[in-house]
Amino acid sequence: MSIQKPKGTQDLLPGEIEKWQYLENKARELCRRFNYREIRTPVFEHTELFQRGVGETTDIVEKEMYTFQDKGDRSISLRPEGTAGVVRAYVENKLYGEPDVSKLYYIGPMFRYEQPQAGRYRQFHQFGIEAFGSVDPGIDAEVIALGYSFYREIGLKDVTVEINSVGNPAVRAAYREHIQRFFAPVKDQLCKDCQSRYDRNPMRILDCKIDQKFCEGAPTIVEHLDEECRTHFQAVQDHLAAMDIPYRLNPRLVRGLDYYTHTAFEYKAAGIGAIDTIGGGGRYNGLVGQIGGNDQPGVGLGLGLERILLVLQAQGVEIPAAKPLDVYLIGLGEAAEKETVKLLQQLRMQGLSAERDYQSRKIKAQMKSADRHRATYVAILGEDELAKGEITVKAMATGEQETLPLAGFAAALAARLRA
Amino acid sequence: MSIQKPKGTQDLLPGEIEKWQYLENKARELCRRFNYREIRTPVFEHTELFQRGVGETTDIVEKEMYTFQDKGDRSISLRPEGTAGVVRAYVENKLYGEPDVSKLYYIGPMFRYEQPQAGRYRQFHQFGIEAFGSVDPGIDAEVIALGYSFYREIGLKDVTVEINSVGNPAVRAAYREHIQRFFAPVKDQLCKDCQSRYDRNPMRILDCKIDQKFCEGAPTIVEHLDEECRTHFQAVQDHLAAMDIPYRLNPRLVRGLDYYTHTAFEYKAAGIGAIDTIGGGGRYNGLVGQIGGNDQPGVGLGLGLERILLVLQAQGVEIPAAKPLDVYLIGLGEAAEKETVKLLQQLRMQGLSAERDYQSRKIKAQMKSADRHRATYVAILGEDELAKGEITVKAMATGEQETLPLAGFAAALAARLRA
Repeated sequence: MSIQKPKGTQDLLPGEIEKWQYLENKARELCRRFNYREIRTPVFEHTELFQRGVGETTDIVEKEMYTFQDKGDRSISLRPEGTAGVVRAYVENKLYGEPDVSKLYYIGPMFRYEQPQAGRYRQFHQFGIEAFGSVDPGIDAEVIALGYSFYREIGLKDVTVEINSVGNPAVRAAYREHIQRFFAPVKDQLCKDCQSRYDRNPMRILDCKIDQKFCEGAPTIVEHLDEECRTHFQAVQDHLAAMDIPYRLNPRLVRGLDYYTHTAFEYKAAGIGAIDTIGGGGRYNGLVGQIGGNDQPGVGLGLGLERILLVLQAQGVEIPAAKPLDVYLIGLGEAAEKETVKLLQQLRMQGLSAERDYQSRKIKAQMKSADRHRATYVAILGEDELAKGEITVKAMATGEQETLPLAGFAAALAARLRA
Repeated sequence: MSIQKPKGTQDLLPGEIEKWQYLENKARELCRRFNYREIRTPVFEHTELFQRGVGETTDIVEKEMYTFQDKGDRSISLRPEGTAGVVRAYVENKLYGEPDVSKLYYIGPMFRYEQPQAGRYRQFHQFGIEAFGSVDPGIDAEVIALGYSFYREIGLKDVTVEINSVGNPAVRAAYREHIQRFFAPVKDQLCKDCQSRYDRNPMRILDCKIDQKFCEGAPTIVEHLDEECRTHFQAVQDHLAAMDIPYRLNPRLVRGLDYYTHTAFEYKAAGIGAIDTIGGGGRYNGLVGQIGGNDQPGVGLGLGLERILLVLQAQGVEIPAAKPLDVYLIGLGEAAEKETVKLLQQLRMQGLSAERDYQSRKIKAQMKSADRHRATYVAILGEDELAKGEITVKAMATGEQETLPLAGFAAALAARLRA
């Protein structure tokens, strides 16, 4: 009996993996331009980190984490998201002591025990950035711009940025009361989840798919912002306008996590049905303190790569395929085959991608293999040619053939491919 | 109280992460040239996979795995090594049905609950390759050559390849008896571990640090190879010679894992003390069948990245640092600062890495920040210049200053940096 991969996980194989490499290279390249540098934190953390950093009463922490005791009897969890670990590393490694803003990015696997469905896996992958140490609204806008630029550069169409301000703690406390007052008359008619949200986190009612009919005319937090929050929010918008990033105000946008302050944003893609959010983030000025550091402001975003690949496919966006093979080498007869072993290594040391047969196949089958590898050249070495110190090279696109000297062959072919 | 990273894990931060990126890019580039394509398998697998694929009686499986029950009551383990998952994916995705040899590579985190020490972590990282579907000794040599070329290209000095043949199952069964006969007279004087190895896996006694004094004159497996094994082993050596890969025969080399057949090899580095093995691998013709697939031959290698970084440091090998920042933008006064926001985004969209201040610092502090980022250019926009539609650009290496028109500035600077 053969063993299967765990439910909700994926094998990423050649053919598919190139899409991942493409997205990741784009993300890394964009981070270089925006001056974000990579950080890698462990795949698992002490469970307490996520209880503090994501929230003990969230679905993620309550229901979806892979939590276990290690052999030293510590409670360990596979990371369900990327921000908590980065914040922990920022604090533990005292990055707040550095003179510049800490601008960090990560790409990696996250884990949630959820019911698998299209685009949702138990091991999934996120690209995220975090900027610590600045309250400047310009950096909120920069984070939003980086995400938007990423979508645009990978070819996603009709991406919209929605932004909102969720205020500071004082504003939120006051707004909470407004919301409760608004929903009080219909409280008993709300769905079960929202009845519980009413006391714990009434802002989340606005997000509920079921209770939208009761949300009409609800007060928005934007109407209740104080001077500081209003100024910050306006400045973020001014920066976005200066950077030519189109955005839409969405006063209903509250995001799932409690730690957001001021800016909250989401990216939406057209033409992919009702669940159209493809990424988001916001400012979280209280989170670093909550995780145990000196209080430092932060702002970040997270994008799910599985979801992006789904949307790229739905929109019919072509992703560049793997590079073709530079040269496929065929040796005919024992002596020539031996010589190809030497040539193969020389070609590779010249920087070319080179392949030969390892299955004792006939020349016709080897030519087919060269085709499957989309070889630019096939080089054939027969006994006669070996004796004359030559090799035949065929350009597969044109069918043109020529004879080159064996000596210096690797360098000559490299020069030809670079031309 | 702040939360720490789990014992035995690392945060890889900017400054250090560039070394990892460098190694990984080299590995990927080399795999492209050798025509190996990436595969990614899940971070966790059903525990049974490792019991079958690594061996139920190995230390890894018996003592070192992170094993737990998931919420669906499956026994799950974080992968302790890379080969088992790749073999499982090869079988489950029916890659054996493809006409060409499956040449795969992986780079990723592995997990073992061991006592942490220099270069040994509970989350560690391996670069590995696997080739399935060929019994050609040429591919054993190719795998060895790829690893050797990797070490050489990252600048490691004095790397030696040691090779051996561990035979096929029939040869090993016969050799096992020779070994037992040899050690029988001293069995009671062997260390406790080796007394247990005597029955379970007597070949491992040859590897024991404590019992080396009893190993003098022990029979080697090479002396007992049959015709098939001898031919294969000789061909591997001929290929290595043709490829100019220096190697040394080590008849004592047996490798830890039982699944190896024919070729076993290790890489050793000079000048790093007694534990000088920096990677290794071998052929495993029985493993695919053992994991539940149609029996298919395989050969592969695995290299530990933490260990390689240690050796690079011990040998004083320089790793290229992060690229410098292309341009640091400074705006003086409100209107100019606003213009820099626009310019910043334009520069980044031109492919340049660009940064500005987000901490309301004075110009002197901003110049220092530009220095820390090793900026190639600092561009300063004052109110006067803004009025004239110009911007001042200073080349930090020479101190030279010039004035450029604001219109088309991003494109002009990009052209200058590319020149």
